This record gives sequence, C-alpha cells and structure tokens, in this order.
Amino acid sequence: MSRVSDDGDKAEVRVGVLGCGNVGGALVRLVAERAPVIEARTGVRLRITRVAVRDLDKPRPDGVDRSLLTDDARAVVDADDVDLVVELIGGVDPAEDLIRAALEAGKPVVTGNKELLANHGAELFKAAEAAGVDLLFEAAVAGGIPIIRPLRESLAGERITRVMGIVNGTTNYILTRMTEGGATYADALAEAQSLGYAEADPTADVEGFDAGAKGAIIASIAFGASVTASDVHHEGITGVTPLDIDFAARMGYVIKLLAVAEQHDDGSIGVRVHPAMVPTDHPLAAVRESFNAVFVEGASVGDLMFYGRGAGGDPTASAILGDVIDAAINRRKGSHASVGQLSTARIRPIDDVESAFYLNLEVVDRPGVLAQVATAFGENGVSIRSMEQEGMGAEARLIFITHRAREAAVRATLAALDRLDAVDRIRSVMRVVSDS
Amino acid sequence: MSRVSDDGDKAEVRVGVLGCGNVGGALVRLVAERAPVIEARTGVRLRITRVAVRDLDKPRPDGVDRSLLTDDARAVVDADDVDLVVELIGGVDPAEDLIRAALEAGKPVVTGNKELLANHGAELFKAAEAAGVDLLFEAAVAGGIPIIRPLRESLAGERITRVMGIVNGTTNYILTRMTEGGATYADALAEAQSLGYAEADPTADVEGFDAGAKGAIIASIAFGASVTASDVHHEGITGVTPLDIDFAARMGYVIKLLAVAEQHDDGSIGVRVHPAMVPTDHPLAAVRESFNAVFVEGASVGDLMFYGRGAGGDPTASAILGDVIDAAINRRKGSHASVGQLSTARIRPIDDVESAFYLNLEVVDRPGVLAQVATAFGENGVSIRSMEQEGMGAEARLIFITHRAREAAVRATLAALDRLDAVDRIRSVMRVVSDS
Repeated sequence: MSRVSDDGDKAEVRVGVLGCGNVGGALVRLVAERAPVIEARTGVRLRITRVAVRDLDKPRPDGVDRSLLTDDARAVVDADDVDLVVELIGGVDPAEDLIRAALEAGKPVVTGNKELLANHGAELFKAAEAAGVDLLFEAAVAGGIPIIRPLRESLAGERITRVMGIVNGTTNYILTRMTEGGATYADALAEAQSLGYAEADPTADVEGFDAGAKGAIIASIAFGASVTASDVHHEGITGVTPLDIDFAARMGYVIKLLAVAEQHDDGSIGVRVHPAMVPTDHPLAAVRESFNAVFVEGASVGDLMFYGRGAGGDPTASAILGDVIDAAINRRKGSHASVGQLSTARIRPIDDVESAFYLNLEVVDRPGVLAQVATAFGENGVSIRSMEQEGMGAEARLIFITHRAREAAVRATLAALDRLDAVDRIRSVMRVVSDS
Repeated sequence: MSRVSDDGDKAEVRVGVLGCGNVGGALVRLVAERAPVIEARTGVRLRITRVAVRDLDKPRPDGVDRSLLTDDARAVVDADDVDLVVELIGGVDPAEDLIRAALEAGKPVVTGNKELLANHGAELFKAAEAAGVDLLFEAAVAGGIPIIRPLRESLAGERITRVMGIVNGTTNYILTRMTEGGATYADALAEAQSLGYAEADPTADVEGFDAGAKGAIIASIAFGASVTASDVHHEGITGVTPLDIDFAARMGYVIKLLAVAEQHDDGSIGVRVHPAMVPTDHPLAAVRESFNAVFVEGASVGDLMFYGRGAGGDPTASAILGDVIDAAINRRKGSHASVGQLSTARIRPIDDVESAFYLNLEVVDRPGVLAQVATAFGENGVSIRSMEQEGMGAEARLIFITHRAREAAVRATLAALDRLDAVDRIRSVMRVVSDS
C-alpha cells in the first residue's frame, strides 16, 4: 500500500477510520464492495488508507486489511494520505480532540457520535464552519434512517412544530415484548439482553439517556437552536407494568418510549423523553421490535415519518457511507454542507410543558368519591377528557384521560389526590400522545 | 417593485415561478412567511420577483401580489431579475422548453413535474449537468415526503434491491374506504370525487399511470439507471372487489396499489404498478387514507420507510421550498447537486418478474378437483404455499397463495386452470408482497 501523498488525483478520496468495531468493520467491507459503483455514478473513488484501533492484537472481521491498522488515532488524523476522517470511537474524550484536529487540518469529518454532538455539537459545528469543511453525522441519530439530512435540507423552509421519535431500539424491543408477548419488564429486559439488544448495564437505554442525547441533536437541527443533553427531561421505562400495557390496549393505545421535541409559539423549546400512550392508529404505534422511527409535524408539510433500523453495524455503516460520499463530493467541489446558524435555545421548563395524561387511581368504593376526585382535577385547572370506573371488590378503580394540561398543574392534582382519604393509591400516570 | 438587476447582492436569490395554482399559491405565501427565518439560518434571502400564469384575470389566493403576475412564462425565465426558476405548470409542453431555456441560461430549476421527468428526465439531467446548475425535483414524487434527496444522497452508497411505494393518494383513499368502510369501488370513487381527492376523469389515478410515472423516477434515482414511464407495467384498481378485500383481511392482508421497482442480481430492472396484498404487520399496511409512503429495501441498511402527505398545496410547496433553498445555497457556493451518471437500464420483461400470487377459484364440489387443480400448478412449476377450501352450496371455493413464481408461469397456470371443466371461474388473482 502506498502512503505517498498524491494530491494530484482529485478523484480519489483517502479515508481514515477511527475505530473498527461493529460499525467500522461493516464500513470497511461496504466501501470495498461499493467503491466501483460509487465511482461510476459520482466520479469519486473512495479508498480506506488507515484504520485506528485500540488493540492491534484483537481479531478483526473478514475484509479488514491488517496492514492498515494502527493504534495511533492521532497519526491517522494527521496522515498525508488521509483526506477525510470517519470517527467511530464514541464518547467525548479523545473523540472531540481528534475531530477538532481533523477539521483544523481542513479534513472533512463523518461521525456517528451522539454523546459528543449532544454535549458539544454547537462548538464543533462552528469549528467545521470556520474551517470550511464538512462535519456530517447522519449516523448519530436513528442509525441507518436518513433523518438529519431531510431535516436540514428537505425541510429547511418548513416550520417544524414537533418531532416525536422512537429512537432507542432496546426499549422499543422490550415494550414490544411486553405488549405482544405479555412479558413483565424484567423478563423482556432479560430476553433483550440474551439477544444482544440490551447491555449488561442497561441504564443508558432504559432510563432514556440514549434517547435524550438523540432528542437533543434532533431538536438542534429541527429548530435551528443549540440544545444539549442537559436540557432534556428524562423518564425511563423501568416503571412500566403489564397493567399499564393492558389498560393502554383496552383504551386503544400502545406504550412507547418517545423522545419529544417541541417548539412553542413563543419560540421556546422543550425536549423530553418518557413513556407515552400512542393511539393504535398513529403511525408510531406500528413501529415494532427494535425498529426506530421519527415522526415530524410541520406547519406546511403536515405529518411525516421516517422508519428503519436505528442500530446495527450494517445499517449504521450505510449511513456513514452516505455521509462519506457527500463529503467527498463536496471536497472535490470545494464546497461543504452547513448546519447553519444555531440560535441560543430558550428551554421551556418541564413544569410549563403541556401534555394529555392518563391516570389510574385505586379508590374506596363509596358514594361521593368521584366528586372529590373530580374536584381535585378542577381546582388545579386540569380538564378531564374521558373517565372509566370499574369495581374491584371493596375497592374501585378510576381511569382518567385528561385534555392537554401543564405538567405543574397535573403534579399539583396528583398531590391533591394523594391527600384524599378516598384515594388508596395512584397506580400509574402516563403522558398520552394527542394532537397539538 | 424594482426590476433592476442587482447581481452584486449575492445573498438575495430572485425566484421566478411558472404556474400559480394550488402549489404555486402556497409557495408564494410560504416564501413570504419563512424568508426571514431562512435568511437568519442560511444567509440566503429569497424573493419572488415574477409569477407566470395562464389567465391574468383569474382570482388568485391571498398573499399573491398581482403586480408580479404575467402571462408570458418565457419572459419570466429570461428576466434579468430571475436567478432561479420554479416550474409548476406540469405536462411536457411547454414545461420542457422553459426548463431547458432556464438551464441553458445558467439558472437553477426546481420542478414538481413527474410527467416530464418520467419521460424526459435523463436528457434534462444531462442538460443541467452540462450547464453546471441544479435541477431539483423532490416534489415530483410523493409530494411533501423527502424521498429523492435521501435516495440520491443518504443512500448513495447503498445497494438498493427493491422500492415499494404507495405513491397515489387517490387510490389509497379509495382502497382505505373499501377496507375500513366496506364500500364498493364505485361508491368509494364517488366519495373521493366529492372530497376533491379524485378527478372527474379518474383514469390517470385508478389505472396506475400517475403511480407509474413516479415509479419510473424512483427507479432511475434508486438504481442509477434511466427508466421511463413506458418501461412500467400497469394494472389499476378498478377490478378490486369487496370480496377480494374480505379474503385479504381473513388471510391477514390489506390491499394496496403499489409501485414496485426492483433491481435483480443480473442488474436488470423491473418497474410495475398493481394492486397487491400487503401483510397487515408490514409498515405499508398502516398507511391509510390519502397518505403516501415509500418503502426501501437495501442490502446494508435493511428496511426503511418514508411516510407523509403525497399531494396538496402546502405539503408540495414545502418540498419545493426545500429544493429552492438548496439550489439557492448551491448557487452562492458556485456548486450544484448531481443525479450522477445514469446507465442505460436493462428492463426485465414482465413475464420474467417473480411474485407470490393469491388465486381465488370457484370450482365444482366433487372428488378429484383439488388434484386436477394442483396438477395445473405443478406442471407449470408454480409452488403452492398455502391452500384453503370452502363450500358454497353445490360449488366450492379454492384459495391459494403461491410461493414466488415467474409471471409467465402463473399466466400459463391460469390458462391451464381455465381449460379445466371443474373450474367454473377464476374469481380473482392478485400479487402478494413477500420477502425478496
């Protein structure tokens, strides 16, 4: 393999890859397979010239030429025979420094690093703009699903009001097993772990941190404002019970973990991750197993949905390769894509966010209880859309779906209900997806 | 309004619009509303300077400045104060000449003209490439849904094997009414007409010509090969009966009009439009009413789906505006997008295309009939996946679902069945969506 710089050959773009795990290995194979077709269609010849790994002795998948491997990631970034850098290390350190170094050297960067972008995206976009090169990151949100490019380019003129994403495959798999197989949360988690869908420590997935990072990136691009992971309100799925799933089904809903990003009329932005009841005829309700989907509501375009594989080596490598081709073409033209000017986001406090809510209350079965409960709602300004009552021996159960109400008002209602002797237990509370 | 050329102001892009109907009117309003935000984010200031209409005296929607109107479309293309042309006239003549004139004058063109692109796309893409300017057409397929840009850019590295689209809202509305409301085809069509979803002469929609033109464009972009409307095999929905809908439902399917584009291992391409039975757990089955969706199967990325509004003034104007912004940014950078090199497509004859099939036969109820029928399948090499038999008084009904088989073999089987005395009638035949 030649390591002589040959800048004269503008058709060839030499790619340095940082990280050669699941995605990196798939990318190396995919580039080898597709390079001739890509060259025939676009005139750009891709060649992977260097691959940085942590452990040189570890076995690598078929198709990875060991002579390209090095354990010095910085040397890959700096190499004369690397025109474009793909960062697949993940995490903030050392990925951030490596990406900055590449951008400052005028090398376009393609990354799938959601953690880095959700925490330091705005500064990195600025660094890319200052250097006049691409920083592309389609793979950072929803794996193989094209969502960043459509939001950034196709919908550049659209006033997007809300984005709701099923952007974590692990939790969607668990909730699908609970819904379709009647499994408990613990059993479904164990099954997901045995299939390799969930990690031994599933916290990042089941508590909504992974979805929150993706939600922050989506909000930044959809609303043109800098939103970080710390701006996102999180609630996970560990408290979802078979009873919740059953009640949801009876009322025509399925439970999904959603990342919801909204821009309000006053320009403020709210981003939150929580389980929610989705009407069964909503397109998001049909997103099953480990699939992901992002549902976009725009003032002109109406409802859009983008569906596909949110993780996995091959789908993610496909998204990375799409970005690599784009960056390679732009490099040849002396052009680059731009996230555009991100404004400073005004984050709406979670207390001021409005949702419809489902409440499931266990109450004593005696006259006047419903009146007391209804008073608690009314005094806090929470309006009831529907109510069902059912007996359970000496007790009774009241199930409410509210109209859209402020979180703070719902929380005050819950506190008031908790103080009522007639209310034995607030069995569960969950947000409900409704029209704006 | 100034008509003085001011090329010095590179930030401003002056847009000439040809056609001011439903989409054109929505575009004019949308640009007026969104121009400040677009300028803040991208640095590009959009201004509509001229609008060509056929009839100057016709009333125009609110927000359309009558002083911009002219009935001389060519003058809009040629005007010094038009930097970019949006073509919304539709049809081949005079749209083709106007687009060519704009491209030759170095002006980027945005169009939603499926008929023109499905018949003359390849030459127009060449003209745009020769002129070094954009010819963008997101709105030509599936209205507001971003599908062309994802196919062309995000999936540039992907080996796409099959695309299945619900790309005609009229027929999807009719089939939804038949499925969910038990309507006959005639009643559902009349309802669609009364709602403005179907034209007085519905031929282009219900016979699949509209979907076919979109299928040709999708195939060209997905496979990088020039496919025209004349390459597409068409079958419409006029023969779909409530009985077909019922049997489909009983077997776990819904009937959809699909545009299917496949690239086979030998590189040949088949594009066809026909009603098909879609499994109810397939994402396309959940696409209801007048919504559209495009389902993409890729070798690496797996299954993707893009869902949204396929028609309507506002959604289509949103797609047009996304392209206008893209072209305006490219113009400032002196860059342009490219469809890439389209190869000459080898079209696979419909006889050689493989599908699974559903057959519904009315037969006489006597011993040995099933054996005769099964022999007709076997002798033509068509393998049966499942069979159901039910009595109907003196007669019986046989329902078959086959494994994937060549069209020619299925046609030969039907001819053989038709010759059997025991077969009273071939009640219906329909393709079934199955894996690969």
